[in-house]
Amino acid sequence: MLRTHSCNELRIDNIGQKVVLCGWLHRSRDLGGMTFIDLRDRYGITQLTLDDSNQTLCDFARSLGREYVLQVDGIVRERSSKNPKMPTGDIEIEVHNIKVLNKSKTPPFTIEDNTDGGDELRMRYRYLDLRRNVLKENLALRHRLSILIRNYMNDNGFMEIETPFLVKSTPEGARDFVVPSRMNTGEFYALPQSPQTFKQLLMVAGFDKYFQLVRCFRDEDLRADRQPEFTQLDCEMSFVEQEDVLTMFEGLIKYLFLKEKNLQFDAFPRMTWDEAMKFYGCDKPDIRFGMRFVELNDVAKGNGFSVFDNAELVVGICVKGCAGYSRKQLDELTDFVKRPQVGASGLAYIKYGDTDGADVIKSSVDKFYSQENLKSILQKFNAEKGDLILILAGEKMKTRSALCALRLEMGSRMNLRNSDVFAPLWVIDFPLLEWDEETGRYYAMHHPFTAPKPKDYPKLSTSPSEVRANAYDLVVNGVELGGGSIRIHERTMQNNMFKTLGFSEDEAKHQFGFLLDAFEYGAPPHGGIAFGFDRICAVFSGIDSIRDFIAFPKNNNGRDVMLNAPSNISDAQLNELKISLK
Amino acid sequence: MLRTHSCNELRIDNIGQKVVLCGWLHRSRDLGGMTFIDLRDRYGITQLTLDDSNQTLCDFARSLGREYVLQVDGIVRERSSKNPKMPTGDIEIEVHNIKVLNKSKTPPFTIEDNTDGGDELRMRYRYLDLRRNVLKENLALRHRLSILIRNYMNDNGFMEIETPFLVKSTPEGARDFVVPSRMNTGEFYALPQSPQTFKQLLMVAGFDKYFQLVRCFRDEDLRADRQPEFTQLDCEMSFVEQEDVLTMFEGLIKYLFLKEKNLQFDAFPRMTWDEAMKFYGCDKPDIRFGMRFVELNDVAKGNGFSVFDNAELVVGICVKGCAGYSRKQLDELTDFVKRPQVGASGLAYIKYGDTDGADVIKSSVDKFYSQENLKSILQKFNAEKGDLILILAGEKMKTRSALCALRLEMGSRMNLRNSDVFAPLWVIDFPLLEWDEETGRYYAMHHPFTAPKPKDYPKLSTSPSEVRANAYDLVVNGVELGGGSIRIHERTMQNNMFKTLGFSEDEAKHQFGFLLDAFEYGAPPHGGIAFGFDRICAVFSGIDSIRDFIAFPKNNNGRDVMLNAPSNISDAQLNELKISLK
Repeated sequence: MLRTHSCNELRIDNIGQKVVLCGWLHRSRDLGGMTFIDLRDRYGITQLTLDDSNQTLCDFARSLGREYVLQVDGIVRERSSKNPKMPTGDIEIEVHNIKVLNKSKTPPFTIEDNTDGGDELRMRYRYLDLRRNVLKENLALRHRLSILIRNYMNDNGFMEIETPFLVKSTPEGARDFVVPSRMNTGEFYALPQSPQTFKQLLMVAGFDKYFQLVRCFRDEDLRADRQPEFTQLDCEMSFVEQEDVLTMFEGLIKYLFLKEKNLQFDAFPRMTWDEAMKFYGCDKPDIRFGMRFVELNDVAKGNGFSVFDNAELVVGICVKGCAGYSRKQLDELTDFVKRPQVGASGLAYIKYGDTDGADVIKSSVDKFYSQENLKSILQKFNAEKGDLILILAGEKMKTRSALCALRLEMGSRMNLRNSDVFAPLWVIDFPLLEWDEETGRYYAMHHPFTAPKPKDYPKLSTSPSEVRANAYDLVVNGVELGGGSIRIHERTMQNNMFKTLGFSEDEAKHQFGFLLDAFEYGAPPHGGIAFGFDRICAVFSGIDSIRDFIAFPKNNNGRDVMLNAPSNISDAQLNELKISLK
Repeated sequence: MLRTHSCNELRIDNIGQKVVLCGWLHRSRDLGGMTFIDLRDRYGITQLTLDDSNQTLCDFARSLGREYVLQVDGIVRERSSKNPKMPTGDIEIEVHNIKVLNKSKTPPFTIEDNTDGGDELRMRYRYLDLRRNVLKENLALRHRLSILIRNYMNDNGFMEIETPFLVKSTPEGARDFVVPSRMNTGEFYALPQSPQTFKQLLMVAGFDKYFQLVRCFRDEDLRADRQPEFTQLDCEMSFVEQEDVLTMFEGLIKYLFLKEKNLQFDAFPRMTWDEAMKFYGCDKPDIRFGMRFVELNDVAKGNGFSVFDNAELVVGICVKGCAGYSRKQLDELTDFVKRPQVGASGLAYIKYGDTDGADVIKSSVDKFYSQENLKSILQKFNAEKGDLILILAGEKMKTRSALCALRLEMGSRMNLRNSDVFAPLWVIDFPLLEWDEETGRYYAMHHPFTAPKPKDYPKLSTSPSEVRANAYDLVVNGVELGGGSIRIHERTMQNNMFKTLGFSEDEAKHQFGFLLDAFEYGAPPHGGIAFGFDRICAVFSGIDSIRDFIAFPKNNNGRDVMLNAPSNISDAQLNELKISLK
């Protein structure tokens, strides 16, 4: 070992000891007669002290630049002015010798919590960005969570089983990344979007309780919270019903909160997909705050206001204590809902104010609504004086979605979305299928292996969109952490499902024949769940983007700007693979 | 839960309890008045008993086929004739009801320890093969070892950090699998052959102690013990010297042997690469047995036997107690060494026998060697009466390699390679470079990031083949479990290394510019090791092939015959990727 201690190890008890430390020159202060250096490693910072008594050493120390790698011999001394904010703040090292293990050019940005480096620069020098506390802590959290997850799963009898990465392309769902095969000319492997079919085969194989922390791949156009490769906690159990899966994995999430954050939770609340859509406008409600939707068709229609009269749905939220919102603030909100990402055509409001104790109800739709009309709307919200009602109208699902965005915006404006507060929620009873206007066919809402609820079997041929599934999502603070379902385990049911999804028998056989075959050799009833591990890490840190929880992420063009990948490959490589570029 | 207990849970204490079990119909015996069914799940087997008192149920039970999935209600009863070989052998289930959860076609091979299924068939129905005890136990061992490894690494302050799978193609070394990028037309990612450069970047980033159990990919022509994707335990440490790495990972392997096999070891022996080649003819000696090579140039040459006289090396082994080998047996050995895989041109022997107490020394080279000559050869081996000396001659490295194969063959014939005995060994001081005749250049023996031993620096430009590295392999029972080295951490040294390997400055920059850049921003001294995790599992089980420790392996053509992958992809996919087939 080149060192005797780390930079976060020496305390008052070590005073007088000869030590050797290694680390990076974090900061250097030249105070005339004294020079102080903060030496940093993964564990912390220790202060080195040099005085003029050794002029040569002192001069040498002053010549060293930021981020030089040093090996330092010295003696632990008590500080005269202690720093209670630093774990090593009681001591300093009286330096006897400094060896430069490696030099450093001046980094292109500062290695500080609030760095001066822009996104692109920090991505290019990711190895420097990772020296900053915040990223270091993110990866440390990720490591701790992975250890906790594995120990929970192991303690509960789950086996981690690795599934292949070079698999078969199955274009249902997102786009596959493909890998040309040299040994099988003209053929391609695909990288797995998830180990879904493999975990089901493992259930057929009798493994009973499987899990895997596993990389998955989707060739999608990227957004801030998407990466072409991401890590999933993938789980499956046999001989279970939905309740068993929810209990097991509610246990996992509680265990993680307890061990990592010392937080305890009662049973997680549950909400059907229908309720989530009706009261929050999306399938992943942030229930850290209220502002549940109130539907207003009965009281808002029929007053001659054509926008409401012609709308499929009139729906609003009650924002507590915001009746005082100014014209400017309300215009901002109108602009917000009119943004293309939100997509509403306008915003109506009712302010429930008072003047000298008397109710003053003002509204953007005064022209069409009497004070009585407005009062009856306020009553639907149980509004109190001081409240602001915000109302959208239009096509049902679009209006819900727009109001969902507005509700979250209001939650943020009112500081109701505290990142130290965690509100887990099971959303259950998802529809099995969703209709796609563009392609004119049904798609599986979770995936084609999800089982319909037994009581809804008959509707599969008559009214597919009404069929519900034993499918569930775990949502925390408005983020979907995971989702799963009870699976189909019978060949005939799986055949029916593929038929409903518009697969010909040949297509189904070509793409999923191995699974259909497996269902004929004693497939047990089974179900499972998969969590986005990057998301779990981000939510535990109260951060929106998963990128900072991935050591070497891609940018929004799918590039690793540090490696400069993807890149050209040689003609020799292309020739061996028997492919050419168009 | 569809069950109250597993099939390996009920004992004498449970007698009288009402239980529900789920599992597969493993075996069924119809004994006239009684029907017995062995119900199997992941955990074990429980016997179900039905008697004629319920004729309908009994008839139903007799109609059920092998591998049907059953849910069984019944009461735990004490067996009249107990089976001490089964953990559940004291009890049986008096069956009240059987529900078929799923049917099964008759499996194409028996689900037994000694199955009647051939390799190809079992690969195609891998999910059935995995039901067999031996494969189930292999994956269970793999799971246990992964948990033990992670806990050891975590306890020793290592962080598991995931590195990307979509990286940059770097053709040095084995062939890359590549992945065409849709978003970056004409460009390709590569799948990593190992996270080598990433773990070095993590050291530059200050992570200090990193590990990862990670999939790696090599597009090589396959052999029995190779797979296109395999799992590596990848590790790296900063501020360390070779001794620190050896100590840490000797500790890991000892920990695994202790926890998994209750075996304790003294310090692992160490051998230089030179010694390994000289005494065992390879860099991964199986030291469960002796038969060390004895070089014979001084005593064997100069007697007019041109095969020896013209050979660069005459070298042999002494096989204890085999002087009685028959002509036929010796012919077999001669055939063995002449096989193309072994490559010797012939085999000479000396039998040290006796008749009525008198030495009788017989040899295949009697014509050229007097009894005195032969005795002096025997003395070099410290041979005793009854021993058989086997001698090969020819070009040094080829002859060593052939004798290595013969030594292992003799070890196997004499049952000296017991799979319950484990002989770990560090092989150290590897050459930095090896010369390749075909391409007329040096290649890095480990990889281009391995540091030369400081005292050998000067030889790098004058006599590169003499330079030794602080590189080490861990060998157990003749299998290389892992290898590593102290790395280069300075840009100039890395530049020199690339130059020695024949890289132009542009090539080095193009392929590894990010790492060379990183070395300029304070790279610490570092080193590490990587273990083949599939190999660790195989060696712990005393099995040669890694295939049976991988849930879904590829065959020797790189195909997954169950999935039928790789396969054709659609023209639409090819068009999106802007590639075409030649």
